[in-house]
Amino acid sequence: MLFDRVVIAGVGLIGGSMALAMKQHSLAREIVGAGRKVENLQLAVELGVIDRYTETIEDEISRADLVVVAVPVDAMERLLKRIAPRLAQNTIVTDVGSVKGAIVELAQRHLGSHFQNFVPGHPVAGTENSGVLAALAELFIAHPIILTPTFQTDSYATQQISKLWKGIGGNVLEMNVEEHDRILAATSHLPHMLAYALVNHLAKQSDSEVFFELAAGGFYDFTRIASSDAVMWRDICLHNRHEIAKDIRSLSKDLEFIAQKIDLGDGAALQQLFERAKNTRSQVGDHRQQRIKTAKE
Amino acid sequence: MLFDRVVIAGVGLIGGSMALAMKQHSLAREIVGAGRKVENLQLAVELGVIDRYTETIEDEISRADLVVVAVPVDAMERLLKRIAPRLAQNTIVTDVGSVKGAIVELAQRHLGSHFQNFVPGHPVAGTENSGVLAALAELFIAHPIILTPTFQTDSYATQQISKLWKGIGGNVLEMNVEEHDRILAATSHLPHMLAYALVNHLAKQSDSEVFFELAAGGFYDFTRIASSDAVMWRDICLHNRHEIAKDIRSLSKDLEFIAQKIDLGDGAALQQLFERAKNTRSQVGDHRQQRIKTAKE
Repeated sequence: MLFDRVVIAGVGLIGGSMALAMKQHSLAREIVGAGRKVENLQLAVELGVIDRYTETIEDEISRADLVVVAVPVDAMERLLKRIAPRLAQNTIVTDVGSVKGAIVELAQRHLGSHFQNFVPGHPVAGTENSGVLAALAELFIAHPIILTPTFQTDSYATQQISKLWKGIGGNVLEMNVEEHDRILAATSHLPHMLAYALVNHLAKQSDSEVFFELAAGGFYDFTRIASSDAVMWRDICLHNRHEIAKDIRSLSKDLEFIAQKIDLGDGAALQQLFERAKNTRSQVGDHRQQRIKTAKE
Repeated sequence: MLFDRVVIAGVGLIGGSMALAMKQHSLAREIVGAGRKVENLQLAVELGVIDRYTETIEDEISRADLVVVAVPVDAMERLLKRIAPRLAQNTIVTDVGSVKGAIVELAQRHLGSHFQNFVPGHPVAGTENSGVLAALAELFIAHPIILTPTFQTDSYATQQISKLWKGIGGNVLEMNVEEHDRILAATSHLPHMLAYALVNHLAKQSDSEVFFELAAGGFYDFTRIASSDAVMWRDICLHNRHEIAKDIRSLSKDLEFIAQKIDLGDGAALQQLFERAKNTRSQVGDHRQQRIKTAKE
C-alpha cells in the first residue's frame, strides 16, 4: 500500500476520480473525503468513491499520510490555513490546480516548514462535466500529469506523488512552475479565451434565427470549451495573468499578419500558413495515436 | 421526377452526396458526372454515385435540365466559360461554393442571358474527409442550405433548387449575397482563421516533446478545423477578403479587451464575459437539439 490514510479535500470530478482510481489500484487503505457540502460527501460515500467523510478536516489531518487539495483555487488559501497547524511532520500534501505559480506562493506562505512536503501537481484531464457523479477511475489514464516541485520540495515526497499518479495510469512530467504556467497558458488558457471571445463576438452581431441556425453546426463543436465553468476560468485568468495576457496579445499579432495577407490578396502566403498549421496538427495527431496505443498496452 | 437529366461538374464529397441523395429520393432520372480526373469518375460509377460520366461536359449541357457546379472556386471561371455557349434556355445552373459574392460576379460575367437561371447555393455541411469515397446520401439532412438569388434570378429556378434541397433533407434559407458572406465570415471563416493561427502560434514557441504531450488533449479537439484543406481555405480568404479581414480585426479588439481586464485583475468583468458566452452557446445547443429532433421526425 502506497498510502495508509488519504484525506481528499474537495470530492468533485478530480478528487473523486483520484479516490476511485486509488482504491481500484490498492494505493490507499482508507480514503476520507472532506468538503463544505454534506450532501455531496454523503453521495460520494453512497457511490463508493470515498470510505467515509468529515466536515472538520482538521481532526483528520494529523492521522493522514497524504492530503490531496482538490478545491477551487479561490478556496485554497482558507483550506491551507486550516490544515497547516495540524500537519504531521511526514504528511505529504499535493494539489491539482490548473495554475501553479499562484498556488505555490500560497502554500509557501501558509504551510511554513511543511512546505517541503508540498508537491504541486496538475493532472491535465477532465470532462465537460463536473462533480462527483462524473468521477471515473479511468479519468487519468494516458493523460499528462504535471508535477512542479520547487528546489525546497523533498524529493521523497515528489517520488511518492509520482508513484501515485503512475499507479493510476497517468503520464508524469516534471517541470518548473514558470514553465508550467507558460505552456498551459498557450495550450489551454489561450484556447479558452479564444472560444469565449468568439462566441461573444458572434452573439453581438447576430441576426438571431439565422445566426443560431448557422452556429449550430461546426461552430458549436469548435466552441465547446466556451461552456466551461466561468468562475473557474475567471480564477485561472486572475492567477496566471501575465502569461495569458501576453499570449492573447501575441496571438492578436499573428491574426493581424493573416489579415494583412488577406488585404494584399497574397494567396501563396496564406496557403503556406494554413499548410504549416495542418502539418503541425497532424504531428500532434501522430503523438496522440502513440499515446492511445501506449495506454492500451 | 423533379429533374430529368442532371449534370454534376465535380464529383467529390458534395457533388457525390447530392447525386446519391437525388437518386435515393427519385429526384432525377439520370445523373451524369463530369470532371478532370477519369479515375475519379470511374470510381463514382462503380460506387453507384452517378449513372455515367463524360470528359467533355460541353456535349451534355444542351440536354441537361440541371447543371450542378461543384468544383473548387478557382476552377469555376474556366468551367462557366466552357458551359455557357451550350446552355439551353431553360437549363438551371446552381453551385455549392462557400463564398457567394465572388461566384455571383463570375456567373454574371460569363453566363450572359443564362445568368437569370443561375441559383447561387451553399450547403453548410461537410466532413473532415473529402472526395467521392466520403460521399453520403444523408450528408445534408437537417443542415442549413443557403440560397442567395439576386434580383435577376428567375423565381421558378430558385423554387426548383429549393425543392431539390428540401427533397434531400436540407433546411433551406434564403438571404442576399452580402448577408451570406458576412454571416459565414463570422460563423465559419473566422473560426478557421483562429484555429490556423492558434496552431501556428503554439508550434512557434514549442518545447517540442512537452508541447506535443500537452497539445494532444483538448487542444487537439479544439483545433480540428485547422486540418481543413489549405488550398480551399486560401481561396475562401481570397474571395471573401473584406469580410474576413474585418472580422479578424474586430475579434482582435475583443481579445484586447479581455487582456486589459486580465491586466486590471477585473474578475467580475471576466466572469461576466465568460458567463455570457456560456449562455449563448447553451442557446445554440438548444437550437441544435431542436434541429436534430426535427430531422428525426
